Parts: sequence; C-alpha cells; structure tokens
Amino acid sequence: MPEFKPIRPDEVVIDLPPATAAGLVFIGRIRSAYASPADCPKNTADRTEPAAIEVDPAFADGLIGIDGYSHLVVLVWLDRSRRDVIVQSPRHLDRPHGVFALRSPVRPNPIGLSVAEVLGREGCHIRIRATDFADGTPVLDIKPYLPRIDAVPAARTP
Amino acid sequence: MPEFKPIRPDEVVIDLPPATAAGLVFIGRIRSAYASPADCPKNTADRTEPAAIEVDPAFADGLIGIDGYSHLVVLVWLDRSRRDVIVQSPRHLDRPHGVFALRSPVRPNPIGLSVAEVLGREGCHIRIRATDFADGTPVLDIKPYLPRIDAVPAARTP
Repeated sequence: MPEFKPIRPDEVVIDLPPATAAGLVFIGRIRSAYASPADCPKNTADRTEPAAIEVDPAFADGLIGIDGYSHLVVLVWLDRSRRDVIVQSPRHLDRPHGVFALRSPVRPNPIGLSVAEVLGREGCHIRIRATDFADGTPVLDIKPYLPRIDAVPAARTP
Repeated sequence: MPEFKPIRPDEVVIDLPPATAAGLVFIGRIRSAYASPADCPKNTADRTEPAAIEVDPAFADGLIGIDGYSHLVVLVWLDRSRRDVIVQSPRHLDRPHGVFALRSPVRPNPIGLSVAEVLGREGCHIRIRATDFADGTPVLDIKPYLPRIDAVPAARTP
C-alpha cells in the first residue's frame, strides 16, 4: 500500500462498498518520463518528453485498423491512487468539490482518461505527443477518438 | 452468463489473462428506455427517450460542484458484453478491425464511454439528453467534460 497524502480540512473519506467481480485485465502499460505520479505534469500542453502506449503482444491483433486515427482515447488504471476521498480540496479551487466534479486521480474507480495525439506506431508501441501518467501505469482500453461524438468544443464549465 | 452472438468469419477470439485484483465498485446505474443491449440505439443524435444517471446515495457527496458543467464523461461497465473477441467484423465496415480501432461494447475491459449532455439534476438523479446504454448498466465514474483537453474537433478518422 503506498503512502497517501494527508486529508485536507473539508475533504471527506467514505467506506467503499466491497469491489465487485467485475475484474479488469491490463492490456498494456504507459511509457513515460515520469517515474511516479508525483512526477507527472498537471498540464501536458507544452510537454515534449517521450510518451507511448505499449500494448501487450497478446492484444496485438486489437490494433488492426487503428492507424488512420489521429487521436485515441486512453483509459488507464491509476494503480497508485487512493479511492475513498469523496470530497476533495484541490489547491487551485476555493472550496471543496465532489470527486465527480474533479479530474483528480483519487476516485472510487481510479480510471484515468486522456485524449492522446498519435505520433506514430511501431507494432505494439504507439508513440503519443504527451502523457500525464506515470511510467508503468496499466492500460485498460484504447478507443478511436470520434470527433462527431467526442468533441464538444462549446461545452460549458463553471 | 448471457448468450453471445455467433462469431463471424475473420473475427478472432483470444484467451484473456486472469482478471487482476483491480476491483471495481459501481457508483450508480444508467436509467434508460432500453431494457437490454439489443434494444439500444447505435446513434443517439435524434433520440428523445428519457435517460438518466442514477448515483448511489452512498456517493452523493461526490456530486458537489458538478452543476456548472454542461457535459459529463460517463464511464459504465458493459456487464452483458463478452470480452474475448479481439478482431471483429461489424456490418458497417468492409474488413475486420481490431477492438482498439472500434467503439464496440465487446472489449477486454468492457468499459463504455459517452459524453453526456446534462439536462438537469435532482439530488442523485442526473437527467441527460440521451444514452445508448441499457437500463441498469452499472456506472463506474463520472468526470466533468473539459473542452480544453477533451474536445478535438479536428481529429482525423480514416
């Protein structure tokens, strides 16, 4: 069990229900320049460090037909996150927020999502422009990014 | 175990590795007009049937601060999907594709993703404009949609 950061005032921790039988398989790993979550950038806009999705060869056939997509949705398992802090007080916000109103890695199911720009692919090694995930983070899924359903540039935020 | 559709020619089934200890918790359920996955629309653009995310009251505090977001990313567990068909031949494509080049519900980790437009919220009941998930589908996560990182309208598809 990793050491967790202290809970801040106003943050709320809950008892999670027991995990279900809905088991996950890891289909690959993130390769990045960041050894641990603490080393990961909050914002990848100007990042130039090498980053890749390394798919396990057992799942290689799953990549057939993927090359025409400029962007992929990557789902990862944030295996070093705690899961029970339901209300959090991030430094950049002036009041506590529920986990479902945050993109925090600390969540009941610590599934990270990012839209990755593809630079190229050599077999099971997909080079991407940047990542905010630590090296070795397990990958759960890769989906083609479909702007027709995934891109909502006019979406409103508070 | 549900009955699965027959495997089409050119489709490929693999032995999945054993599921890991990365257990999931269900934080709610989808409420929709579709009793089973077979009833779900492929395209929700013109759909007007009622649809909602029903968050389990144990996770209610996780919704604090969510109301200013017009769109949410919803991750669900497609609990009635098979998981081992790594190459698939959907009717609308002229050749087989790997699962990671498809948005098929059949995938090693059957996690469904949709960008949902919020119509309103009454406590743990979040009304959304449409869904292509069956009634009762377990919800894994809700994330605020952030157009700055999630919207790539110019993303290319083959």
